[in-house]
Amino acid sequence: MAGATDSAIWFFGGDGATEGPPPEELLGGKGAGLVRMSRLGLPVPPGFIITTEAARALREDGAPPPELERAIDAALDGLQAASGRRLGDAQRPLLLAVRSGAAQSMPGMMETLLDVGINPATAAAMAGDDETDGRFAWDCLRRFAQGYGQAVRGLPAHLFDEEWETWCERAGGDDAALSADDLRDMALRYLELIHRETGRPLPSDPRRQLKEAIIAVARSWESEKARAWRALHDVADDVGTAVIVQAMVFGNRDAASASGVAFSRDPSTGQQVMFGEYLPAAQGIDVVEGLRTPLPISEAMRRASGLDVTPLERLMPDAFAELRAHLRQVEAHHQAVQEVEFAIERGRLWLLQTRDARLSAAATVRVLRDMAAEGLIGRRDAIARLDPVTLERLLHARVDEERAAPPIARGLPASPGAVCGQAAFSVGEALRLKVLERDVVLIRPETSPDDVRGIHAARGVLTSRGGMTSHAAVIARGLNMPCVTAADIAIDEDRGEMTASGVTIRRGDWITIDGASGRVYAGRAPLRPVNIDAPLATLLGWADEVRRLRVRANADTAGDIAAARDLKAEGVGLLRIEWMFLDDDGAALMQRMILAADADERQSAAARLRRLIAGQLEGVLRAGAARPLTLRLLDLPLAAFLPADARSEERCAAALGVTVAALHERLERLQVESLRLGLRGARLYLDQPWVLQTQLAAIFDALAAVADHGPPPELEILVPMVMGGREFAQLRGRIDATATRMLPDALRDSLPVGAMIELPRAAIRAAAIAAHADFLSFGTNDLTRAALGLRREEAAEIAGLYVENALMNGDPFMTLDEHGVGALMRYACGTARRARPDIVLAVCGDHAADPASIAAFAAMDMDYISCAPPRLPVARLAAARAAV
Amino acid sequence: MAGATDSAIWFFGGDGATEGPPPEELLGGKGAGLVRMSRLGLPVPPGFIITTEAARALREDGAPPPELERAIDAALDGLQAASGRRLGDAQRPLLLAVRSGAAQSMPGMMETLLDVGINPATAAAMAGDDETDGRFAWDCLRRFAQGYGQAVRGLPAHLFDEEWETWCERAGGDDAALSADDLRDMALRYLELIHRETGRPLPSDPRRQLKEAIIAVARSWESEKARAWRALHDVADDVGTAVIVQAMVFGNRDAASASGVAFSRDPSTGQQVMFGEYLPAAQGIDVVEGLRTPLPISEAMRRASGLDVTPLERLMPDAFAELRAHLRQVEAHHQAVQEVEFAIERGRLWLLQTRDARLSAAATVRVLRDMAAEGLIGRRDAIARLDPVTLERLLHARVDEERAAPPIARGLPASPGAVCGQAAFSVGEALRLKVLERDVVLIRPETSPDDVRGIHAARGVLTSRGGMTSHAAVIARGLNMPCVTAADIAIDEDRGEMTASGVTIRRGDWITIDGASGRVYAGRAPLRPVNIDAPLATLLGWADEVRRLRVRANADTAGDIAAARDLKAEGVGLLRIEWMFLDDDGAALMQRMILAADADERQSAAARLRRLIAGQLEGVLRAGAARPLTLRLLDLPLAAFLPADARSEERCAAALGVTVAALHERLERLQVESLRLGLRGARLYLDQPWVLQTQLAAIFDALAAVADHGPPPELEILVPMVMGGREFAQLRGRIDATATRMLPDALRDSLPVGAMIELPRAAIRAAAIAAHADFLSFGTNDLTRAALGLRREEAAEIAGLYVENALMNGDPFMTLDEHGVGALMRYACGTARRARPDIVLAVCGDHAADPASIAAFAAMDMDYISCAPPRLPVARLAAARAAV
Repeated sequence: MAGATDSAIWFFGGDGATEGPPPEELLGGKGAGLVRMSRLGLPVPPGFIITTEAARALREDGAPPPELERAIDAALDGLQAASGRRLGDAQRPLLLAVRSGAAQSMPGMMETLLDVGINPATAAAMAGDDETDGRFAWDCLRRFAQGYGQAVRGLPAHLFDEEWETWCERAGGDDAALSADDLRDMALRYLELIHRETGRPLPSDPRRQLKEAIIAVARSWESEKARAWRALHDVADDVGTAVIVQAMVFGNRDAASASGVAFSRDPSTGQQVMFGEYLPAAQGIDVVEGLRTPLPISEAMRRASGLDVTPLERLMPDAFAELRAHLRQVEAHHQAVQEVEFAIERGRLWLLQTRDARLSAAATVRVLRDMAAEGLIGRRDAIARLDPVTLERLLHARVDEERAAPPIARGLPASPGAVCGQAAFSVGEALRLKVLERDVVLIRPETSPDDVRGIHAARGVLTSRGGMTSHAAVIARGLNMPCVTAADIAIDEDRGEMTASGVTIRRGDWITIDGASGRVYAGRAPLRPVNIDAPLATLLGWADEVRRLRVRANADTAGDIAAARDLKAEGVGLLRIEWMFLDDDGAALMQRMILAADADERQSAAARLRRLIAGQLEGVLRAGAARPLTLRLLDLPLAAFLPADARSEERCAAALGVTVAALHERLERLQVESLRLGLRGARLYLDQPWVLQTQLAAIFDALAAVADHGPPPELEILVPMVMGGREFAQLRGRIDATATRMLPDALRDSLPVGAMIELPRAAIRAAAIAAHADFLSFGTNDLTRAALGLRREEAAEIAGLYVENALMNGDPFMTLDEHGVGALMRYACGTARRARPDIVLAVCGDHAADPASIAAFAAMDMDYISCAPPRLPVARLAAARAAV
Repeated sequence: MAGATDSAIWFFGGDGATEGPPPEELLGGKGAGLVRMSRLGLPVPPGFIITTEAARALREDGAPPPELERAIDAALDGLQAASGRRLGDAQRPLLLAVRSGAAQSMPGMMETLLDVGINPATAAAMAGDDETDGRFAWDCLRRFAQGYGQAVRGLPAHLFDEEWETWCERAGGDDAALSADDLRDMALRYLELIHRETGRPLPSDPRRQLKEAIIAVARSWESEKARAWRALHDVADDVGTAVIVQAMVFGNRDAASASGVAFSRDPSTGQQVMFGEYLPAAQGIDVVEGLRTPLPISEAMRRASGLDVTPLERLMPDAFAELRAHLRQVEAHHQAVQEVEFAIERGRLWLLQTRDARLSAAATVRVLRDMAAEGLIGRRDAIARLDPVTLERLLHARVDEERAAPPIARGLPASPGAVCGQAAFSVGEALRLKVLERDVVLIRPETSPDDVRGIHAARGVLTSRGGMTSHAAVIARGLNMPCVTAADIAIDEDRGEMTASGVTIRRGDWITIDGASGRVYAGRAPLRPVNIDAPLATLLGWADEVRRLRVRANADTAGDIAAARDLKAEGVGLLRIEWMFLDDDGAALMQRMILAADADERQSAAARLRRLIAGQLEGVLRAGAARPLTLRLLDLPLAAFLPADARSEERCAAALGVTVAALHERLERLQVESLRLGLRGARLYLDQPWVLQTQLAAIFDALAAVADHGPPPELEILVPMVMGGREFAQLRGRIDATATRMLPDALRDSLPVGAMIELPRAAIRAAAIAAHADFLSFGTNDLTRAALGLRREEAAEIAGLYVENALMNGDPFMTLDEHGVGALMRYACGTARRARPDIVLAVCGDHAADPASIAAFAAMDMDYISCAPPRLPVARLAAARAAV
């Protein structure tokens, strides 16, 4: 084949296809996929690819340089030879598809031209006298005219759509009722439209058509839509797209033809069954665009849908079997689930495109587990390929159907997860609600690329049309966002409302969708968290084998500790004692101690408080048996315990047995002492040693009691609000002394005491603190607040501002600010380790649940992180990926 | 002399005094002074010193080890030979003074025993039949008995004082009226008291007396009072005191005898005139204790006092002349003003002790200037010896006598400076007021070491008794705290009030004292700042020659800039533009811009605001002509400009020409935008670029206007709230672009732009910021707040807690937290300089006025600091000392 060695153009699908490994950056993902499929010997219509590099000139100059023009001409000659058809030939006309193809898939963002090469004469020849051939031929011309008008001449879609609707109405609303003559007249009317609107007719020369189409596709890289998409997905603007020119095959040729999309496994569940949809006598675009609801590909899918339709498996069993075999082959080659576009023309199967399927989070997990089990990939690969963001979203809630009211509608479970949100019926509404920090469910008849901004602003998507592979479904799965499509709801876009089961949901009303069940609920349905299913449990088990960073849980109750144990936490990294002081009894006793009239009164309250806290702690410590348990001492100012209003003052006075006036006097007297808000943690213990001693007494009582009846936890004491080495040493000394006095040797000898590093000064003085501490636990929330001078509640918005200006990667309270707070932590870790090589370093802030932050912590060589129990799976996986 | 080579004991004042340089750490300050005076050939009563090391054994064991006992005995033998007197001898009895003497003077904190060696038999022999001799001899016995009873036997002072008062009353209230017989009976009564109270008589053996006295003095190092003093002054507990044993001389022997204290220059003014006080026929303790008001030493002093008394100069002209000559000699030897205790016994002058005089701040400055001018010390020495704390306090206010009401009392100007405070009549009251953060004036008849805590809690001291060298005066001068002594006020300690000129001041009432004029005012008298006098100006000029750290001033007005220029500021380091936005007109226009209904409205308000600010800035920039002037851009959130209450809402609505309801609607709409408190400085400029542009337009207008008529300032633009390199680069880019558009080349080319380093993150990212910045200015207040998690208003108390626990050196908002914030700054400076070696580094927080912090900044090699104009002298001096 001519031009096979020309680097600007790659051939595939015929003899003499270009050799060598297909470089994705030159051929684009789609192009490389076609080359690979054709090398596997699969039925791919022949074609050629103009590389991203060669296409750059087209894009920039608006015309091919002479040598590229010559190469394209030569390539066309080759393609005619390979296909046995000729451009403009009346008998065997070669029609072409011209598609974009970037290294990263940008679904629907660039132009595609189909049926290039047709003109009225060719169409008439193709039509002959046969009604079926006629309908097909004129429909091809019509489709090409519309594509050309829009993509090359820039005419608006509505110009053609209105014409189409007029004709359909005339035919009684059913396009299938349009005759060959109707379609011919319509196609000719489209040509007139183009001539009239642009002053120039559609060129009838197929080569001229093709060149204009190639340039239009290359230039669509620069469209506003494409640019916005790239900005959103962080794709560089100068990468560019390849242009793929391929012989057309026609799923819409006749009743023995069809088009469809098939997945090598179920992209929603990950099950190893072929999955897909098709439309008989249709082109692929009809399936994808969601204008017609496609049919299930297999009998199993049909059964699951409950619909009385004919699956491809029954309609064309041979093509179906062939497709299934091909899918297995492509999947094995790519080591990933493949999404393949196919067409069947007069019973013959063609594969038009393959790409890595976008899988739901659950499917991703199951596929990775299965592929590793099948030996297709290694376990470490499986972990490396499981994006924690995917897992994180997998752990989204489901509607609790037992507690929820009955659904008002059902649709296709297009992307799993459940969300409650406020209804928005347009992109604008969604954006407005988002600005108000509301959770939004975007409700559209169907979605198109124009809706992408609205989908990004939403937490879930609900459509009344489209299938499992519709635009909305694909985008939502990509974002791991709940999506229900083809739901039985009636949408009134103009009024901004929808109706289902007699219930009307207006804009701003609450609605709940469950993308796993396909159910839609009015209002805010109750949600329940998902369980760890077997595939995920297996993968997480592999992750646990790989990771070095230990993962503990933050827990406040025995229940939390049990939940954390189920989720394989390696102990409790943060148990805050304050909850025990804040319940009614505890708070009342604290009040008594603070407001005690004399030492006796204080002592008696202290004794009761000690018993109370010890009693509560016992249960917690027992739940943490035989594992590390870091107990953080009280981190509240005394002011938090004092009555804040008239009613609680009365209650407090009554409890103390004094008048309110007397209480006021005591409060007055205390004012000058030390109830200030800044006086908490280590500072409070220095000022009011009894606060420390009361806690220690209760803790050691509880520990001894637990140890009497079974294994105690490996208790560690964490001191909050530390800011210096001598300060910590002094407090540690008191803790050690009290332990020596109260605890039996066995318990006392293994009582590590550590400091919370939550003030920047503590990070700066980490070496001095480490000299006296067994461990340091970083409170990254507080460090972030202090270092950036940002309160958490305003962080999202300010971070938004910075992200917009490309100055920050995201909310620093969600993902560690690596260059700022991270640098401070690296400084602290480094100096602390030099001061004390065996120091244990940990993180117990919210960042310990964020994958990107966990990678940073692993790079700092932290010993463990501690996160909320529901986040343990994400943390375990992220820790493993950091080690892979 | 025996034992001269024994290292445990040093001799002085006789032939064969110990040789070699006297080591202060072994001999104590007092002991070393005696050794030096005796080497200069001055009349020092002979004696010996038990070194601090030898005394340690006495202190710890309560008895001398045998070899020390032998050494002491040998030393006594030598002393008898040198003095020509013998212990217990009836004819020429040797009486001894036993004093403490630590390396650092601890005035009044340890024990002294006088007249050791006397017993009733010796006293009777000394008395003979002469009434004068008798009164002297028995008084010696009485004094010894009381000293022994208290120091050796631990009896309370009141036991003896009550006895003394009873006898004085009997004699009509005048102790001079007591006869020799009275004094004998009293002395014997004291002996009885000791016997009765302790069960053991006072030993009559002089050697036993001496040994017990030596041990008591050595052990008084451990007294609670002494320990507290050392804790307060940061003196280590294990240094110990030497014990000085010296032959007594008797200023109280007869009418030709006297005791006194003399300074080589006036310790209050620094003038080169002898200064001092004396009492005829008295022991030194009588002068120091303030029980009798001493007399002026010279005729000049007497004239100044206006009193009709006889100065020493007239009473004993020869001794006076000799004393003056000796003082000059001692001063020249020590290169420091000396305070000498002297006694004249029967016309013969003896020097008992010398030490560096505590000088008032003004005196310190003058003396250093004079000594450097006299060639006694070098200029760099003068700077090194001027403690900035001294200078700082010298810059305290004076009462503005023209505006003040007439004083209610006059006293001695014992320590300069003026202060308004609330009256406290006891240590307890002073401490209580201090806890409430009140300014306190402590009012006492006289002060004793027991009052020291109260003096420390006070801002000023007022006494009705005591002279210029009384306890109160000495301590107050040491603390550079205003003090007035011997004021004509009547104090009623029991009722807690004082009366003067018919005005009664009760506890808690406001009172003002001026320690430079000796005047006392009721209420809060108006104060005025002191001027820089000639000696200080000279010293500061020398300081300017020496220092490397440049000193600029924070200024907000043209007046500030002029004041700063007078005080030799090298430009303006911080001029905050916000004041111009916050006046009525500016704030109203800001409101209009923020709440503008449309772009037109905003633009018209912007134009007016630009003219307004430019007009105000012009005056300021003109005042800063030809010097650097750092202008900090607006650092307020927009919320600061919005109406905060109903009345200002009405005003705002009227100004906007809308209803209050419409205003509310606009405010509502803005809510979701960006008026948040955290959104200020750099963040606000990113979000609302017009805030930056409006300022720049006004600044550049003003700069161009000033440049048209004279030299403009060397303007530098400082961006607040920066937290990253890219952020700063983006804003800097906008500033540069606007400058390029608006300014002529000459002004634009030299427009440095810098970043405020006030967030810990900015310090961590200093290198990235420095890459784009011409200078960095550290805002140490905000850095401290963020790093320590401490609000300024609570810092003093929490710092107090930490100082008490020896965990911190002081309020971190007053003195830089070197190990924490300082380490962060060193990190920032180091990385910034590596990123950009020519970066200019500066400090503009309050710490730039604190000497210790300035030393730290100099060590960081900062380029300049910027402080409030009144603090410039302190800053200039501190910067110079850092370089010396």
